[in-house]
Amino acid sequence: MTKKKEIHGIKHIKKPSNSKRKKGVERLKVIPLGGLEEVGRNMMIYEYKRKILIVDVGFGFPGENNPGIDYVIPNTKYLEKRKKDIVGVLFTHGHLDHVGAFPYVLKKIYRKGLKIAASPVTKKIILGRQEEFRDQPKIKIREVKDGSKLKAGPFKVEFFKQNHNIPGNLGMFIETPIGNIVTTSDFKFDKNPLNDEPTDFKKLKKIGKKGVHLLCCDSTGAEEEGHSLSEREIKKNLKKIIKKAKGRVIVSTFSSLLNRIQQVINISKQLNRKVCVQGYSMRTKLDFAKNLGYIQAKKNRFINAKQAQELPDDQVTILCTGTQGESNAALSRIASGRDRNIKFKEKDTVILSSSVVPGNETLVQALKDKILKQGVKVYHYEMMDIHASGHGKQEELKKFIKLMNPKFFMPIHGQISMLYANAELAKEAGVKEKNIIVAENGNIINIGKNQYGIAKKKVPADSVLVDGLGVGDVGKIVLRDRHSLAEDGMFVLIITVDKKTGKIIKSPDIISRGFVYLKESKDLLRDTRQKARKIVREIMDNGGNINWNNVKSEIRKRIGQSLYSRTKRRPMVLPVIIEV
Amino acid sequence: MTKKKEIHGIKHIKKPSNSKRKKGVERLKVIPLGGLEEVGRNMMIYEYKRKILIVDVGFGFPGENNPGIDYVIPNTKYLEKRKKDIVGVLFTHGHLDHVGAFPYVLKKIYRKGLKIAASPVTKKIILGRQEEFRDQPKIKIREVKDGSKLKAGPFKVEFFKQNHNIPGNLGMFIETPIGNIVTTSDFKFDKNPLNDEPTDFKKLKKIGKKGVHLLCCDSTGAEEEGHSLSEREIKKNLKKIIKKAKGRVIVSTFSSLLNRIQQVINISKQLNRKVCVQGYSMRTKLDFAKNLGYIQAKKNRFINAKQAQELPDDQVTILCTGTQGESNAALSRIASGRDRNIKFKEKDTVILSSSVVPGNETLVQALKDKILKQGVKVYHYEMMDIHASGHGKQEELKKFIKLMNPKFFMPIHGQISMLYANAELAKEAGVKEKNIIVAENGNIINIGKNQYGIAKKKVPADSVLVDGLGVGDVGKIVLRDRHSLAEDGMFVLIITVDKKTGKIIKSPDIISRGFVYLKESKDLLRDTRQKARKIVREIMDNGGNINWNNVKSEIRKRIGQSLYSRTKRRPMVLPVIIEV
Repeated sequence: MTKKKEIHGIKHIKKPSNSKRKKGVERLKVIPLGGLEEVGRNMMIYEYKRKILIVDVGFGFPGENNPGIDYVIPNTKYLEKRKKDIVGVLFTHGHLDHVGAFPYVLKKIYRKGLKIAASPVTKKIILGRQEEFRDQPKIKIREVKDGSKLKAGPFKVEFFKQNHNIPGNLGMFIETPIGNIVTTSDFKFDKNPLNDEPTDFKKLKKIGKKGVHLLCCDSTGAEEEGHSLSEREIKKNLKKIIKKAKGRVIVSTFSSLLNRIQQVINISKQLNRKVCVQGYSMRTKLDFAKNLGYIQAKKNRFINAKQAQELPDDQVTILCTGTQGESNAALSRIASGRDRNIKFKEKDTVILSSSVVPGNETLVQALKDKILKQGVKVYHYEMMDIHASGHGKQEELKKFIKLMNPKFFMPIHGQISMLYANAELAKEAGVKEKNIIVAENGNIINIGKNQYGIAKKKVPADSVLVDGLGVGDVGKIVLRDRHSLAEDGMFVLIITVDKKTGKIIKSPDIISRGFVYLKESKDLLRDTRQKARKIVREIMDNGGNINWNNVKSEIRKRIGQSLYSRTKRRPMVLPVIIEV
Repeated sequence: MTKKKEIHGIKHIKKPSNSKRKKGVERLKVIPLGGLEEVGRNMMIYEYKRKILIVDVGFGFPGENNPGIDYVIPNTKYLEKRKKDIVGVLFTHGHLDHVGAFPYVLKKIYRKGLKIAASPVTKKIILGRQEEFRDQPKIKIREVKDGSKLKAGPFKVEFFKQNHNIPGNLGMFIETPIGNIVTTSDFKFDKNPLNDEPTDFKKLKKIGKKGVHLLCCDSTGAEEEGHSLSEREIKKNLKKIIKKAKGRVIVSTFSSLLNRIQQVINISKQLNRKVCVQGYSMRTKLDFAKNLGYIQAKKNRFINAKQAQELPDDQVTILCTGTQGESNAALSRIASGRDRNIKFKEKDTVILSSSVVPGNETLVQALKDKILKQGVKVYHYEMMDIHASGHGKQEELKKFIKLMNPKFFMPIHGQISMLYANAELAKEAGVKEKNIIVAENGNIINIGKNQYGIAKKKVPADSVLVDGLGVGDVGKIVLRDRHSLAEDGMFVLIITVDKKTGKIIKSPDIISRGFVYLKESKDLLRDTRQKARKIVREIMDNGGNINWNNVKSEIRKRIGQSLYSRTKRRPMVLPVIIEV
């Protein structure tokens, strides 16, 4: 096993302080925001003399801690009050963790004439999403590419291309009166990429030579040793597997990995296989990319599922999503026999050309098991190099930091442990320990010409949860209830009483779900009904006016205890008093 | 990255068939059972001429798919009808995935005089658990060790020791009239173990020489290249880290890894550190092992939390559980500041001496992030060799299979993809493809002298879920409800009507949890109440007798749709009609 870097909390990380700003001393404010606390920093705010520049507006995918939540978007309270100060919103690339929250955020920060810029492909992705949302302001997006320049308030921006796994991926060199900032996109070095130009080290060197005051650098690969693989290496391995396959080949990958998809199409062409694209998201993304010219393929390369059935198996490649074991994706549907058109055959070969997104490990294992049980070959990235991360690993990051040679270094994107790992790399690359800034979402970092400080006050940065049409309305209580309901279900006890006498009119009704199998728990239900009546009677016998809230809390407590002692489960007990 | 083996469905895996048994031809039945379908085969049934021998009675831990479930135990319906035929229950070792289901299963299969055997430490663990359960039959367990022999019906068993990470770990050589069976415990090879004797290859060779008809072999490490690490290697690395540490060292590991715990105590002694044991499960397991003599340490080696505060930090080792990020374990309590006695200091060093159990990846990442944010060093097994698996990897498994040189090979323990990987290893080790048996829980494998078959009929093998006091009472419906409640919560609508007229007496009551924040959804609630009244009125206007079940299903459908269109969420809608 290759070993990761020694990671540890860097001792010199500054504590937030209240140190007063000296009069006349100008500072650059940097505020990282992000969807999730743990993997945020994919919405960066740069502020100089009250003018604000935003880079990326990404969202996060909810983990197990957020049941039922669709997305987690950055908190923009700070920006909402400062609409008029925002001089521009710039995007590095079109992946959802960098553009996904834009439709939610735009409504809140929009003002006429807001400057927005992105590469052509990123622009199309953003505008495509705008159409899916209601009540969006009409926006114009300025197209930028490698070498484009743009002025936004006090910020002079020059874009430079970086390799990733989506076209139109741009880093930014930003001149400010305090010094120059370089902020990276997700990036890796690739001397030999496919459908893309190799990394231009000369150009990077030139940028570094201009003097970099602050480098904000992608951290996603910072825990992994060595170099990332070139996409050309991946192609070689994919071809080897597909050549060997005696039956159909089912290649599953992310629909956003346009370069990988192009490879699969090219290999299929070389090996005389037609490509059958399955699943909604793969089909729409592919159409979209073909229309823009980002995927090059003749129409007759593609066939539908019916045509695939008529061709010999060794002339068919099936391209689909579902590498993460998502139950609705094409691959899961095929694996569980739910797909109408495609069923596995014994000579099939499945290639999972992706890594496993943290949190999906069990789902992916289950998917592999399900496929293997059908006698089908499975290749995944832990067995062979059939997936390359889009993120540079330790050696690439160190090289990049050395090229930039920044005075201040701030790791961005990725989990907190990745930030600390990237901080270590910066140290090794020659950045002074005291100039390395590991910040949390919402921290205000004041950068001067020679030093920096973290303000004690944060801007609001707690995650905003998106659930269906609701944005930010699912709070801690709703989530806590969902967790609790998931554990032991719920138990509603409806007690109907006479409004005047307070006497119970009929036997209490019980509605329970997720707790026990009701048909087999008749005794438990009968005893619980009796217990509820007894509790109400006892309280009534104490005389005086009945406080129904007390009755409810007494029922909740005692019925809860009684159910626990009989079942060792704690369903959510919800007493309801109906007065008629 | 080291690459795993090419894994694929082996083409020759036999399909179950109904082939009739030739008269007079004797066969050995093998039936694997287990807690979870995906990681089962940790309760094996060997049956000859209707006599049944059971090896291990393990349980599984529920995954995300089983919310609220405590354990998953094997289905024993087949055995319950065959009590009198069971000639023995033998145990390989004391880990819960091999003995955990015994208290649940014993009640169902017990008969007087049932022969039970285990090594002394396994016996203590089993009897300790028996005491925690009510209504357990009084049992005697025969102590066995390396070289012990035992006869149970037609089965002649000889135990042989295997290295793992718990003492008293035994494989079995079982003579039957059909041929000899070798069934392994969890095992690895260790030429240089701690607190244990090295693997005795001569003895293994001798066993192989006797002729092995069927080998049932642990598969847990089958997907990993190379050899497992020796515990001595781990000790060297642990010592290096602890020696370097300038402050306290917090070592977190599983409480069941008795050998690892002994190492930490030994290193602490050598480096003049006292050991402060934190957390209930670590303390009880340690006391238990000390009493049995499996942990060697003087009383004065240990200190309590208060004494730890008084000692210089570089003389303190804190030993605790919590490597999996479990919120109630000591390490999580310390990391989140909830521990009364121990708070992190900047010079602390945390060592996570364990692997990450699949499914816990996000929890562990969150734990690491939380610790790093406090400026504390963190070492984990991906950075340095500070944990060794108790399971042999590919080279060890191949060597073992070669030593046994079996005619038939059946991979057991572990996920399905591990079974297939182990099958590949057997092929490489010289077992004929047609004699490799990959079976599912419940399959009946009939092994003859020269061939085998899998019966079309399975024995009942669906998982039995344990939730609190309920065993097997939580079924698919309850689980489905829990999932659904976790997604979007629930919405109970109580409609009170006049028994005679069917007219609604009062405004419908709504109880909702996990759906929306009720205080901010007054419009939604008001509109829903109106809609419910309207639905009831419409049905009543149609005249005739009112079928309240129809009313309920109509409300469920239409209110569900209306809530979805307004919120894009689908709470569980539960209409209740109260007739008074």
